[in-house]
Amino acid sequence: MDHTALDLKLSFDDAIDAVTKALGNEGFGVITRIDMDATFRTKLGVDMPPYTILGACNPVLAHTAVTAVPEIGLLLPCNITIESDGEQTRVRIPDAREMLGGAGLSDAPELATLADDAGQRLDRVAAALRGSG
Amino acid sequence: MDHTALDLKLSFDDAIDAVTKALGNEGFGVITRIDMDATFRTKLGVDMPPYTILGACNPVLAHTAVTAVPEIGLLLPCNITIESDGEQTRVRIPDAREMLGGAGLSDAPELATLADDAGQRLDRVAAALRGSG
Repeated sequence: MDHTALDLKLSFDDAIDAVTKALGNEGFGVITRIDMDATFRTKLGVDMPPYTILGACNPVLAHTAVTAVPEIGLLLPCNITIESDGEQTRVRIPDAREMLGGAGLSDAPELATLADDAGQRLDRVAAALRGSG
Repeated sequence: MDHTALDLKLSFDDAIDAVTKALGNEGFGVITRIDMDATFRTKLGVDMPPYTILGACNPVLAHTAVTAVPEIGLLLPCNITIESDGEQTRVRIPDAREMLGGAGLSDAPELATLADDAGQRLDRVAAALRGSG
């Protein structure tokens, strides 16, 4: 799927902090955090490098979306993944326009404006992270 | 987007319990819970009926997927939404085949089998819930 992948010269924990701060500056709170490597270690007994999924939510955008199209909750929150990759940390940011486009924008044209707004915010998050690592 | 919508004659809390149990029977743990109505009330001061997003993860399927295609984390966990709708409760279950198909199965054909497996499990979750409410 379309997404922006950034390789940051930051430790894993510093990358999580940087992502959380950049999202906050665009009105997204981190409302879920899943440490996939810990889940796999506990449930399956397998090891992998640190891999975390942060769930980001901009309450204003989410409220508008859920009010317009209740099933949009199937696509919320907006995930950002953070993967340890040796000396750097990879951050992946989805393409909100494509992601929400999959929700059937043709059925709810008002979502197009919203997807574009979210996309611009995530573009600025990516730009800020590029500058930080 | 394609999904199965079920109107269950269960209270909101009973529906959440029934969904959690049905997911568990198919190997999915609930690893995130977002009470959207509470989020909107706290952040925006607006009221809406109870609306919860459960994030479900089958560790075996998720590990296979993440190992094959690291960016699949952008689409995990699998969301199930639960909405209060007067005397009944609406549960929405996504179409895993469509959802993961959006990840670009053409680039990772091994995901097709996995998406089909997840889809069959979610079909059985839906069937079990139909029988419970």
